[in-house]
Amino acid sequence: MRFLKLTLCYDGTRYAGWQVQKEAPTIQAELEQAWYKVTRETIRATASGRTDAGVHSLGQVVSLQTESALAGDVLQCALSANLPEDIVVLAVDDAPDGFHAIRDAVRKRYRYQIHNGAAPDVLQRHVTWHVPTPLDAEAMQRAGGALRGTHDFSSFETSGAERATSVRTVTDLSVARGSVERDTGERKDRITIEVEADGFLYNMVRTIVGTLVEVGRGAEDETWPADVLRACDRRKAGPTAPPQGLILVNVDYR
Amino acid sequence: MRFLKLTLCYDGTRYAGWQVQKEAPTIQAELEQAWYKVTRETIRATASGRTDAGVHSLGQVVSLQTESALAGDVLQCALSANLPEDIVVLAVDDAPDGFHAIRDAVRKRYRYQIHNGAAPDVLQRHVTWHVPTPLDAEAMQRAGGALRGTHDFSSFETSGAERATSVRTVTDLSVARGSVERDTGERKDRITIEVEADGFLYNMVRTIVGTLVEVGRGAEDETWPADVLRACDRRKAGPTAPPQGLILVNVDYR
Repeated sequence: MRFLKLTLCYDGTRYAGWQVQKEAPTIQAELEQAWYKVTRETIRATASGRTDAGVHSLGQVVSLQTESALAGDVLQCALSANLPEDIVVLAVDDAPDGFHAIRDAVRKRYRYQIHNGAAPDVLQRHVTWHVPTPLDAEAMQRAGGALRGTHDFSSFETSGAERATSVRTVTDLSVARGSVERDTGERKDRITIEVEADGFLYNMVRTIVGTLVEVGRGAEDETWPADVLRACDRRKAGPTAPPQGLILVNVDYR
Repeated sequence: MRFLKLTLCYDGTRYAGWQVQKEAPTIQAELEQAWYKVTRETIRATASGRTDAGVHSLGQVVSLQTESALAGDVLQCALSANLPEDIVVLAVDDAPDGFHAIRDAVRKRYRYQIHNGAAPDVLQRHVTWHVPTPLDAEAMQRAGGALRGTHDFSSFETSGAERATSVRTVTDLSVARGSVERDTGERKDRITIEVEADGFLYNMVRTIVGTLVEVGRGAEDETWPADVLRACDRRKAGPTAPPQGLILVNVDYR
């Protein structure tokens, strides 16, 4: 048996998330169907984490086992050709025996994009959360500092998940304004939040973003996210930010 | 009769262009239907120029005549609420008697976006042309200099149009690499071409882009676009770049 590591990017707009569902299109279902078309082999693909409906990825990692002897670059090409245009396989690499995309992941990075302008950004609406109220990105950046490091993040986990521990280590959390997008001249209406950690609880990034936005719009003090963290109670945190602003950027392995 | 000037932005992906067609959704049809829902009045909307299928706008200007006495901001809100999420009315302003969006336009600016990276940019595929071959943006910028100023642009006009003259004045033409997009770190895989002129022939921007890309990929010399211009023959120019990279940025009036 051969173990493979696939890296893929996708626009999650049209999908009910990663995981196969009966009545709705999902990334996993598309990938497994494309795999079947290319190899006539029925496989089960495991992603580093299930992205929710509307969430995107620039570097999702998927593990699978196969009997196929096709070279990685041939598989990469053939899969992309058999996938819809909103899913692209960036790489297919041989992986060590037993490679497992969830178990072996050591670090993940997410990005969350806010469009902070009065009018909607119609061309970027599928990859941004539109917050028309002016936000203080510097206050959000300062407030986010309390979430860096090793903490029990249960205040930032949506109920329903069963996990051994809700302690995670956040190795980076930054908030920056500034579309330095040349294509929009001097517009400064993009706020980007990046979070890197050894693992994430369910809806953790979206809840962190929803909480920091409360600070950004002046509804809460800069010290508030630290209070929320200490409370270990989801009801203390801000709302869960909508899915379309969230992008899984990359996943690191040993 | 009251003359109005509407400013709208739209994502052209789902539409067969601006102009009403029998079997396909168009921006004009959506706007006229929304207008009817808000005012119970059947009007004809005139855009500064017909955008083609898949072409976007951040500042299309539309003129219309109405009997409605509703305030501009009320109309703006009510129209946006009655339009699909990929069309947004940014402003509704009273205009001088006889205002006509085509006739009275004195200057227009278009932007064309190229994704110049090896892998497709799945999240921006609807607003970029993917050119995987590395392009020399500085050579494109230098080559484009020949197109600035007042010239007969018939080499850059797709056949079919009937116009009094194909002379236009290009007041700006710039090519710049550099996604300075913070959200992608240091990636430099976005090339943006901006063209401003007193008017445009049919497919003029897309043909200019297709021609400059021939220079950028090294298939033609930097002096070639000047030769193409002088030839006054569409067959001499490069291919027409695809529609999805094109954005009408704004239209100026007297």
